[in-house]
Amino acid sequence: VEQRKQGDTTDPYSNDPKRHPALIPSSVKPFNAEPPVSLLMQDYLTPNNLFFVRNHLPVPDVNLEKFRLDIEGIGASGKKVLTLPALKTVFKKKTVTTSLQCAGNRRSDMVKIKPVKGLNWGTAAISTAEWSGASLDDVLKYCGIDLDKVDCDHVQFEGMDRGPDGTTYGASIPIEMARMLKNDIVVAYQMNGVDIPRDHGFPLRIIIPGVVGARQVKWLNKIVLSKDESSSHWQQRDYKGFNSSVDWHNVDFSKSEAIQFLPVQSAICEPVDGQALDDNEEVTVRGYAWSGGGRGIFRVDVSADGGKTWITADIQPSNQSQYKAWAWVFWEATVPLPQGSSGKVELVCKACDSQYNVQPESVEGIWNLRGCLSNAWHRISVSIPTE
Amino acid sequence: VEQRKQGDTTDPYSNDPKRHPALIPSSVKPFNAEPPVSLLMQDYLTPNNLFFVRNHLPVPDVNLEKFRLDIEGIGASGKKVLTLPALKTVFKKKTVTTSLQCAGNRRSDMVKIKPVKGLNWGTAAISTAEWSGASLDDVLKYCGIDLDKVDCDHVQFEGMDRGPDGTTYGASIPIEMARMLKNDIVVAYQMNGVDIPRDHGFPLRIIIPGVVGARQVKWLNKIVLSKDESSSHWQQRDYKGFNSSVDWHNVDFSKSEAIQFLPVQSAICEPVDGQALDDNEEVTVRGYAWSGGGRGIFRVDVSADGGKTWITADIQPSNQSQYKAWAWVFWEATVPLPQGSSGKVELVCKACDSQYNVQPESVEGIWNLRGCLSNAWHRISVSIPTE
Ligand SMILES: [Mo]
Ligand SMILES: [Mo]
Repeated sequence: VEQRKQGDTTDPYSNDPKRHPALIPSSVKPFNAEPPVSLLMQDYLTPNNLFFVRNHLPVPDVNLEKFRLDIEGIGASGKKVLTLPALKTVFKKKTVTTSLQCAGNRRSDMVKIKPVKGLNWGTAAISTAEWSGASLDDVLKYCGIDLDKVDCDHVQFEGMDRGPDGTTYGASIPIEMARMLKNDIVVAYQMNGVDIPRDHGFPLRIIIPGVVGARQVKWLNKIVLSKDESSSHWQQRDYKGFNSSVDWHNVDFSKSEAIQFLPVQSAICEPVDGQALDDNEEVTVRGYAWSGGGRGIFRVDVSADGGKTWITADIQPSNQSQYKAWAWVFWEATVPLPQGSSGKVELVCKACDSQYNVQPESVEGIWNLRGCLSNAWHRISVSIPTE
Repeated sequence: VEQRKQGDTTDPYSNDPKRHPALIPSSVKPFNAEPPVSLLMQDYLTPNNLFFVRNHLPVPDVNLEKFRLDIEGIGASGKKVLTLPALKTVFKKKTVTTSLQCAGNRRSDMVKIKPVKGLNWGTAAISTAEWSGASLDDVLKYCGIDLDKVDCDHVQFEGMDRGPDGTTYGASIPIEMARMLKNDIVVAYQMNGVDIPRDHGFPLRIIIPGVVGARQVKWLNKIVLSKDESSSHWQQRDYKGFNSSVDWHNVDFSKSEAIQFLPVQSAICEPVDGQALDDNEEVTVRGYAWSGGGRGIFRVDVSADGGKTWITADIQPSNQSQYKAWAWVFWEATVPLPQGSSGKVELVCKACDSQYNVQPESVEGIWNLRGCLSNAWHRISVSIPTE
């Protein structure tokens, strides 16, 4: 049972849940935090209390007696309403293992080039869990809606988290994306086998594998089939990509497409940046790799000389198809250290996904004003003993 | 009607078809050629006689009276046989507009860094056509095979083109890829509304949108449902990716995955490399962009200062979904020329696909021994008038 602090009624965040002390906050109100990189790979499925937290607003305190999921819009012929017990009993339980990544993961690497607006995430704004619930396809069918035939263009999701002006968090995905993924989109009520914790969407979160975390709406209480994208701030004026010559004086958010599937990503978790190694012959490097849209990871390369020579890492089997890979892979490589180096070594990793898309070499080429999509080759610096 | 040269029986290539004189060969026997980059964008659908040609072996001269398509392997309960007239009459005609790209397109950019083994393609080993035929799904259903349920791992395709030792060209795709694409994989007998020309697979070519040209087998006469990948040279020991530290002395083809979906790509077609511009204020740059696996193009950026500043190009509407985009897009940007430059200007383009995957900045980071997957930022040099 999660403890709840008794609320200061003037502070909308006073009723937020208690968090694991190991989480490293990038902001407190709203609460945003990532696990220490040294703990990220302890388990393939991230423990719920170490799963990165990305909240845009205060955490709702949901009254289960009153809780309803509304399904409305095109094809729904009036509003349909489902209770949580109905979701748990009427539908077959569907489980997907998927990684969620914040659009801003690794933003701290982008900030080094030029300031951006956004939380200063390290490399651990990504985590993996087993999510269970009713499949979106089943829920819509129950409401008389056939995903393959319904004449709409977007599926909108609305959360119960509200800003000071009363507007709720919201997002949407294109209908064709819902069709592509339909067997794997889950109206989830469990995370790693237990009720979803409050910070992660209790009682319901929409899980859309391969898609940016921001569209996987927490505290879900409404699904709308629509001709339009979500009109929310986060869909329209945030979480979009731009080239590096666009800055706040000349940005036009209406000219860019909402981030949905995320690009190929990888990062070194061990050793950690700045670590002093006790060997000067070789180093064992470990990390994660992931790509959005179901693309698996074909290869991870590791370098101990800044990218001049590369070793292909061993990828831990994860029993996923290469074209429907929703979860990360862990990899490891033992790399000889350059001899005669002055005590500092740069370790680099880069992944190649199952579409043979690769991570870009440098941050400069992908810098953007919001610091999203930071997936350049990951570089860390370690020191090695000198005689 | 295509003219056929009367054969010198000692030369297996003597019966190859006549080609358009504008095609630029990268090899003659087998014949491989691309159109001049100045003609590539004259039409959105590449005229058949200017479509790039990638032959691995002599062009078969098919006797239509004897021609049969065999379907065999798991689920086929014995060999099924279809004639060309049956393919044209039994099944509903299905048309897809898709770009085909050679795995080696833009290899000439990779060769500049370090030699590779492969044809020296420029930027035009990519073309687009409207292909019509029977859908693979319909053909298999007719043979009693349900793609979604058949217990096999790969779909193999075999061509009628044979090497000196009698082995035929062959390739395969994973069954799950066949399932993802099934409505759009076509056993094609027409290219841009006419019989497929001999150089492009007469009478049948398998069209698998979003996948490398090498798997879209020409002169198709056999489809095999199997537990195994194609055992062909081209599937097993060619058309695979490696990091830049792998060369012929240490390569192990069994350790890499066959190229299937191609990564995001773009190139400048106008002006052409080396062109002398007659304006020194601004330049209008035009090109193509494409990504494999159905990913559309979200953005193309163009720079006239080697990548320091970028203009977002206008993309010509192509009426494709952003997640099922099989064909290229054409784009255009008018870019101010840097003032005070000494007469030489570097123009650069880069594309971002609908997964927000980007082209890598430099060729060095993606160099590989076969020179495949050459999709770094495209750079050309032009000269501008000095006073
Ligand atoms: Mo995010
Ligand atoms: Mo190719």
